[in-house]
Amino acid sequence: MKQFYVGVGAIVEKDNTFLILKRSPKKDVSSNKWEVVTGRLEIDEDPKDGALREITEEVKISAELVMPVGTGFFYRGSKEFPMAFVVFWFRYLRGDVQLSWEHIEYKWVTLEEALKIDDLKYFQKELKTITELKKYLPVDFTIEKYD
Amino acid sequence: MKQFYVGVGAIVEKDNTFLILKRSPKKDVSSNKWEVVTGRLEIDEDPKDGALREITEEVKISAELVMPVGTGFFYRGSKEFPMAFVVFWFRYLRGDVQLSWEHIEYKWVTLEEALKIDDLKYFQKELKTITELKKYLPVDFTIEKYD
Repeated sequence: MKQFYVGVGAIVEKDNTFLILKRSPKKDVSSNKWEVVTGRLEIDEDPKDGALREITEEVKISAELVMPVGTGFFYRGSKEFPMAFVVFWFRYLRGDVQLSWEHIEYKWVTLEEALKIDDLKYFQKELKTITELKKYLPVDFTIEKYD
Repeated sequence: MKQFYVGVGAIVEKDNTFLILKRSPKKDVSSNKWEVVTGRLEIDEDPKDGALREITEEVKISAELVMPVGTGFFYRGSKEFPMAFVVFWFRYLRGDVQLSWEHIEYKWVTLEEALKIDDLKYFQKELKTITELKKYLPVDFTIEKYD
């Protein structure tokens, strides 16, 4: 009882733009929809490490954790699939995006552009939160410093 | 498979001090240890709402969410109990602490005092992260603004 699937989301930010991905038509849920890097936590994994793993698997770029910026709960497809999730802000470091089978397209978009894309409504508050936090925090801020 | 219990932690901060609680000897795990407000997520609950519910249940004060500040993974007692967790920073608003059966003592401690308490080692990085974030963020910052 009270067990969950745990989802992780990674919003990768580069010079005030955000990496978004279009899901493959082969995906069982939300096919052809725009999203950010997302995935499911593995056993024995800290959610922040799971988010970084998903970045590596889905887009193969190098990025560093800044901090978690949001959480949520939804049912993935059915009531048998309760999912709690955590969304993290990552800072782009280097590398070119190379997509996996899970996605068919990618874009770096500004906040304004992201807010116009209906599929991204589930990530709007995190995109706004990151934009706001960037006004205040040092450019190299990361919670990893205190690990 | 790949299902988890989800734990939530709430670090309540008031004028640069943090609320810590001593677990009751009646608790099955970590009895008599100091901790922050913690608990387990319910089905249909966003982790940040679960953290606020735990504040209400365990200390009955009024507090507002600032943001998530850390995540982790551990086994609670045994391998049958994999637990992913999220720790949140909350800002104290009002009310006096009233303990539940789960705790036998509470204190408001500074970061320096907290770092000297061995039981709190699992929350050290979040306590340091909050202290650092407070240097930069407006005093009324909250991710709820972007909800």
